[in-house]
Amino acid sequence: MRAAVLREHGEPLDVTEVPDPTCDPDGVVVEVEACGICRSDWHSWMGHGEWANDAVPSGQILGHEPAGRVVEVGERVETIAEGDRVALPFNLACGSCGYCRTGHGNVCTGDHPNALGFELSAQGAFADLVHLPSADYNAIRLPEGVSPTDVAALGCRFMTAYNALDARAGLRAGQWVAVHGCGGVGLSAIQVANVLGARVVAVDVRDSALDAAADLGADAVVNGSTEDPVEAIRGLTDGGAHVSLDALGVAETCRNSVRSVRPRGSHVQVGLTTEAEKGNVSLPTDWMTRHEVSFLGARGMPPTSADDLLSLLASDAVDPGSLVTKTVSLDEVPERLAAMTDYDTVGVEVMVP
Amino acid sequence: MRAAVLREHGEPLDVTEVPDPTCDPDGVVVEVEACGICRSDWHSWMGHGEWANDAVPSGQILGHEPAGRVVEVGERVETIAEGDRVALPFNLACGSCGYCRTGHGNVCTGDHPNALGFELSAQGAFADLVHLPSADYNAIRLPEGVSPTDVAALGCRFMTAYNALDARAGLRAGQWVAVHGCGGVGLSAIQVANVLGARVVAVDVRDSALDAAADLGADAVVNGSTEDPVEAIRGLTDGGAHVSLDALGVAETCRNSVRSVRPRGSHVQVGLTTEAEKGNVSLPTDWMTRHEVSFLGARGMPPTSADDLLSLLASDAVDPGSLVTKTVSLDEVPERLAAMTDYDTVGVEVMVP
Amino acid sequence: MRAAVLREHGEPLDVTEVPDPTCDPDGVVVEVEACGICRSDWHSWMGHGEWANDAVPSGQILGHEPAGRVVEVGERVETIAEGDRVALPFNLACGSCGYCRTGHGNVCTGDHPNALGFELSAQGAFADLVHLPSADYNAIRLPEGVSPTDVAALGCRFMTAYNALDARAGLRAGQWVAVHGCGGVGLSAIQVANVLGARVVAVDVRDSALDAAADLGADAVVNGSTEDPVEAIRGLTDGGAHVSLDALGVAETCRNSVRSVRPRGSHVQVGLTTEAEKGNVSLPTDWMTRHEVSFLGARGMPPTSADDLLSLLASDAVDPGSLVTKTVSLDEVPERLAAMTDYDTVGVEVMVP
Amino acid sequence: MRAAVLREHGEPLDVTEVPDPTCDPDGVVVEVEACGICRSDWHSWMGHGEWANDAVPSGQILGHEPAGRVVEVGERVETIAEGDRVALPFNLACGSCGYCRTGHGNVCTGDHPNALGFELSAQGAFADLVHLPSADYNAIRLPEGVSPTDVAALGCRFMTAYNALDARAGLRAGQWVAVHGCGGVGLSAIQVANVLGARVVAVDVRDSALDAAADLGADAVVNGSTEDPVEAIRGLTDGGAHVSLDALGVAETCRNSVRSVRPRGSHVQVGLTTEAEKGNVSLPTDWMTRHEVSFLGARGMPPTSADDLLSLLASDAVDPGSLVTKTVSLDEVPERLAAMTDYDTVGVEVMVP
Ligand SMILES: [Zn+2]
Ligand SMILES: [Zn+2]
Ligand SMILES: [Zn+2]
Ligand SMILES: [Zn+2]
Ligand SMILES: [Zn+2]
Ligand SMILES: [Zn+2]
Ligand SMILES: [Zn+2]
Ligand SMILES: [Zn+2]
Ligand SMILES: [Zn+2]
Ligand SMILES: [Zn+2]
Repeated sequence: MRAAVLREHGEPLDVTEVPDPTCDPDGVVVEVEACGICRSDWHSWMGHGEWANDAVPSGQILGHEPAGRVVEVGERVETIAEGDRVALPFNLACGSCGYCRTGHGNVCTGDHPNALGFELSAQGAFADLVHLPSADYNAIRLPEGVSPTDVAALGCRFMTAYNALDARAGLRAGQWVAVHGCGGVGLSAIQVANVLGARVVAVDVRDSALDAAADLGADAVVNGSTEDPVEAIRGLTDGGAHVSLDALGVAETCRNSVRSVRPRGSHVQVGLTTEAEKGNVSLPTDWMTRHEVSFLGARGMPPTSADDLLSLLASDAVDPGSLVTKTVSLDEVPERLAAMTDYDTVGVEVMVP
Repeated sequence: MRAAVLREHGEPLDVTEVPDPTCDPDGVVVEVEACGICRSDWHSWMGHGEWANDAVPSGQILGHEPAGRVVEVGERVETIAEGDRVALPFNLACGSCGYCRTGHGNVCTGDHPNALGFELSAQGAFADLVHLPSADYNAIRLPEGVSPTDVAALGCRFMTAYNALDARAGLRAGQWVAVHGCGGVGLSAIQVANVLGARVVAVDVRDSALDAAADLGADAVVNGSTEDPVEAIRGLTDGGAHVSLDALGVAETCRNSVRSVRPRGSHVQVGLTTEAEKGNVSLPTDWMTRHEVSFLGARGMPPTSADDLLSLLASDAVDPGSLVTKTVSLDEVPERLAAMTDYDTVGVEVMVP
Repeated sequence: MRAAVLREHGEPLDVTEVPDPTCDPDGVVVEVEACGICRSDWHSWMGHGEWANDAVPSGQILGHEPAGRVVEVGERVETIAEGDRVALPFNLACGSCGYCRTGHGNVCTGDHPNALGFELSAQGAFADLVHLPSADYNAIRLPEGVSPTDVAALGCRFMTAYNALDARAGLRAGQWVAVHGCGGVGLSAIQVANVLGARVVAVDVRDSALDAAADLGADAVVNGSTEDPVEAIRGLTDGGAHVSLDALGVAETCRNSVRSVRPRGSHVQVGLTTEAEKGNVSLPTDWMTRHEVSFLGARGMPPTSADDLLSLLASDAVDPGSLVTKTVSLDEVPERLAAMTDYDTVGVEVMVP
Repeated sequence: MRAAVLREHGEPLDVTEVPDPTCDPDGVVVEVEACGICRSDWHSWMGHGEWANDAVPSGQILGHEPAGRVVEVGERVETIAEGDRVALPFNLACGSCGYCRTGHGNVCTGDHPNALGFELSAQGAFADLVHLPSADYNAIRLPEGVSPTDVAALGCRFMTAYNALDARAGLRAGQWVAVHGCGGVGLSAIQVANVLGARVVAVDVRDSALDAAADLGADAVVNGSTEDPVEAIRGLTDGGAHVSLDALGVAETCRNSVRSVRPRGSHVQVGLTTEAEKGNVSLPTDWMTRHEVSFLGARGMPPTSADDLLSLLASDAVDPGSLVTKTVSLDEVPERLAAMTDYDTVGVEVMVP
C-alpha cells in the first residue's frame, strides 16, 4: 500500500509504497476512506515530545483520525465483519484492564499499543490501509449513510472535546464555558457546548477563528491580543465561567483558562504543551485552593462513549462535518503539515486517499 | 479583654489589654475556651502572603481554631442563644450568596469577612473573647459534653482534611490515599481516611511524624528523605494512589503528590505555598492530561457539613483530641509561634486562656 | 383586593373582595401580573388529597404560578426592593434549615409554609396581590424585559420539569428520555430535554397533545391508546430509555414509565396521584432490582437553581411562553378550572388580572 | 462428580453422581472448596418465581456462592491459570456488552447465562466442580491465604450489600443507614456500613438476629414486632435515615424501609419478593415525590468492583467470615435448605464438599 512515512523530524513525509499491515488475531484491517489532519500530527512531525523521551520515531506512519471500511478481520474478533464501516479512536485500549472494563479505555493501562499513529506498533492512517488492534473493544461502528469526511472530523478533536466537557467537566445546561483556542478542538468544543445547553465565550488571537466561533454559535468572543481574556470572561459571565477549556497547551492559555473560572469551577486541559513548556506549566495553586478550583486532564474519548456521541449525530444536534474546510489527497499531506508551521489552519482539513 | 496582637511580622505577638468585640446584629460573641495553634498562624505572623497583597496587617489578633460558649447574641440571630457551645470555622460565610445557599459557604463570594483571624474585620481567638459574624449560618453548634480542646483540634485542620478527602476527592472505602506531610492536617487526614475505609500511605521526612502516622493507623509510611516517595507509593499501591493530598504547600511535595496518583486519580491541595513558591507551582500538565489526573483545590469546610462531621465524632469513629500534644496559656502563644520557625511541631498544640 | 376563593370542593371559586395580604418582616407583597392555571389547582379544587389529610381547606385562594412586581417589602428583607420583578416558586422554603442551605429548598423541613396557594398560611395568586414569605431566599429575581405570561408559564410546570430531568435524573446529551403525558409538565419536559441534548419519545392518548409534542421537537410520538407504550419505547430506544418521566400520576402511566427504562435507567415521578391511587402505586420491584432501575421523586425546583434556569432563558434555548395557549381574566378562572373536569387542556393557560 | 440436583420444587435435593461440566473456550472449571447456602437457594427450591415464568427448572444444580481452585482452563482464556484461587459471582456477565464495558456487568444485557445456579446453562456449585463462563471477565481472583469459607461468605450476600450501599446508594461517613432484616444480607450490610463510616439502625423481628446485629456494631436495634420501625428510625436518626435497605423483599419491610428515609434519602432494594407479592409492591409515590425520595434497585456486584472489595478485606476492615455460623457437607445441603422453611437461620451457613 501507499503511506506517508516520517523519515526525519521536520523533513517532508515520504509518500511511498510500504507493506500492507498484517492483521492481529484480535484486530481488523481498515481501508481508509478519510483521515483528519491534526496539529498533533504536526507536533509529531516536528519531533516534539523528546523532553519526555516521547518523540515519534523514524518510520512512523502518521494519521490518527481515520474512518473507513473493514477489509480483513482477525480470527478472535467477534462483533465486526468485513464490510463494516468504522471510525478508529486514536486512543487505543486493551479491552481487559480495570480501566477498559469500567468505561475508561482512554486511559488503558494494559500492555498494549495506546496511541494510533504515534508509535511503530500502531501505524497510522495517512495510508491506504490501517490496522486496528483489539477491534471488538476499540472500533466505533458507524451507521450506513454517514459520510467518511464527517466522521474523520469527529476524531480526535470532536471526541476529545465531547469527553472533556461532558464526561470530565460535567458541563450542564445554563452554565458558562470558556474555550481558549478556536482551532479544530476549540470549534468542536463550541458545538459540544451548544448541544449541552451551555453558553460559550470563545477566545483566540485570530479574528478569522473568532468569526468561525461566532458562526458556530458562541455567545461571545474575546480577542486575546487586544483584551485580557481573564478579565473579559469574568465580566461576561458574572464572576467566571463554570468550566473553561484550554485547547492549545501553551502556558499562557493554560493559566488564562484556569483563571477564567468561578469558585468551584473546573478547567479542563486537552492541549499538550509545546517545546517552550516541555510538559510543565506553572499554575496558581494558592488561588485554586482558596476557591476550590479544579484542573482536570482529559484524553481522547473512551470507545464506550461512542453510542452517546453517535446518538447526538443521529439527532442532528451536532455537525462535525461543518468544521471541514478542505479535503486533500495522500500526496498533499506532507505539504499541509508543513503549512501548519507558519499559521494555524482554521477548521479541520481531511485527507481522502 | 486580653489578646495576642500582631504588631510587626516576625516580632513576638503583644499579649495585652484590648477593647472587647462589639456584636453585629447578625453575630455572636463567644468566650474562648480553647483555640488551636496552627502553621497558618505562623505564616501570618511571618508576613507571608505579601506577594498576593495578602499579608496579615498590623493590629491583627491571630487565632482561627476556637471553641467556646456564647456570651452575647445579636438582635437578628435566630437559632443561637446565650450559653450555647459552639465551634467557629475559620472560613466565614455571608449565608446568602449562591455558594452559601448550595452548601459551599467555604467559598462564599458575599461582601463579608471571610477568614477569621486573618483580617481586621474578623479578629481572631488568641483572646478572651471572639466575635462570629453571620452566626446563624457560620456557628457549629456543639453537643454538651464535648471537651473544648477536642473541638479546638477539629478546626481548621480536621475540618479541612475531612472536606478535602470526603467532599472534594470523594475518597471511598477500599481505595488508597497518599498523605504528604504528617503535621496537624496530615494526621487529621489519616484519621479521616480510616473512617472512610481507605488505606493510607503517609509521607514525611521526620521519623517522629511517621511514628505518629503509624500509631494513627497508616497502612504504610515512607520517609521522603531516604526514598523517592512517588516510586514508593506507586509500588505500595499497585500503580498509584486513588487520591493524594498535599498538606504542606511546598512545590516538591505538591508535585510529588500529583505524581503519586494512578490514571484518573485525584490530587487534593490543602496546603498554601511558602515564600519560595509565592502561590505558584509548576505542574506536569502533559502527564496529567495523558492520564486524566485531577488537581483539586480544597479550602476549610462548609459549615453545612458540620452535622456529618459531628455524627462521626458521636460514633467514636474519629478522635481529633488524640492529636493534641500540648495545651498552653494565652501568654505562651507568642513563644509557641516562634518555636515553629525552627521545627515543625508534631501533632496539635491548643491554647486554653 | 379581589381574589378567587375556594368555598367548597367542586363548587365554583368565589371571585370576591378580600383583605390585602399583610407583609411579614421576612416577606414581600407582589402585585400579580400573571399566574398560570395548573392541574394541581384542579386537584385542590376537587378536594383531592383527603386520603392524606391534605385536602385544601375552605377559604383558600388558589394559584401557585405567579409573576409580578414587588409593592411592599418586609423590614428584614435585604436583597429585594419595591419595584423588582419576581417569579414565585410554589415550593416555599424557610431559607435556614439544612436542606435550604445546601441547595435543596424544595424539600425544606423548616417550620414554615411550604406550598403557595395550597395552605391558608400561604394564600395563592388568583388575586391582585400575593404574599411571598422568606423572600430573600424564595424570590426568583427576573431580568427586565421578560413578559409576565412567559414567566407564569415557567412555573410550576417548567421548573418542575427542569429540576426533574436535570438535577434529579441527570439526563445528558445523546440519551433517550420518554415523557408520559403531554400536558403542561410533559410539554415543558420536552423543551427541557431538547436543551439538554437528549432525544425524546412523547406518549399521550390524545393526538392533539402528540401534535404539540412533535411541534416542540419530540423525536418520536406514541399514542398509548393504540399501541403498548412500553413496547414502543423499548423498540424506538434500542432497549429502553435512559430516563422516563411520568407527568400524570395515574397508576398505569407511572408503571408504564418505570417499565420504559433500560437497565440502570431512572424513572422520575412528578405527577401526584388521583383519587383512584390515593397516593400509592404498585411497582414491579423485582424487575427494578434485577435491572438496577431507579424510581426518583421530584418536587418543584429549588429556588437556588433559578440562575441556571434564567440563563437558559437568556440564551433562547428554551421558550416556555410558546406553551401558553390562552390568557384569561381573574373572573374567568372558576370556569377554566371547571373545564378541566371534562378534558385536559393542551398547553398552558395563564390568568392576567 | 457428585452434585445436589433439584428434581421437584419442595422435594429434597437429589445428591447424586452427574457428568463433570465441560469447559467452554472462554470458561474455566473450578473445584469447589466452599459454597454458601442462601435464602435464594431456598426460593429456587420452593419454585418461587413462577409468576414471572422464572422458576428454576428440574435438573438444576443449585449453589451460587462458591470459591475454589481452577482445574481446567478454556483455550481462549488469557488471564487465569490452572491452580488459581477464585471466587465466582452469582451474577454472570458476557464481558462485551455496553454494561460490561462500563463497570456494570451485574446488569449485563448480552446473550449469555446471567445467574449461576439458577439456570440450566449455568449449573451451580453444590457439587464437586462448577463451570464459570466468560472467566476472564467474571472470575474474582483471590490472594493466597484467604480461607475458602471466608470467601464463600462474601458472596452473594456480602457483595450484594457492598454494591447496594456503596455504589448504588452512595452511603457516606457520618450518615445514618437503616437495615431491614438481619439475615445474611442484612448482617453483611451492617459490616459494610461500618467500614463506610456510617451509623446503623438494625431492624428485625427476632431478638437473636438483633443480638447478632449489635455484636457486629449496629448503633441501635429495633424489634419490628414490638415497635413501629418507621417511627423508631425517624426518632433515632433525627428525621429519617439517609439510606435504608430492605434485605427481605416482603411488602411490609419494603414499604417500611422506603418510609424510613429523610427527604432526598434513598431506599435500596436487594431482597426479591415472595409468593405473596409476586414481584410487585405498592409504594407511597406521592410521599416519595413530595420529599424527593429515591427507590434504587440493586443486584449482586459487578465483577469489576472486586478489587475494592478485596482491598477492604486486605485491610481487615471487614470480616465476612465472622458471619459463618456453621459448615456442612454436600450431603447435608438438602436438609439445611428444608430447615429454612420453618425458621430463618441467623448468619451464614457454608457447604464444604
Ligand atoms: Zn509540539
Ligand atoms: Zn485496557
Ligand atoms: Zn488529532
Ligand atoms: Zn508562610
Ligand atoms: Zn456567601
Ligand atoms: Zn489552622
Ligand atoms: Zn428550609
Ligand atoms: Zn402548577
Ligand atoms: Zn454483558
Ligand atoms: Zn445468595
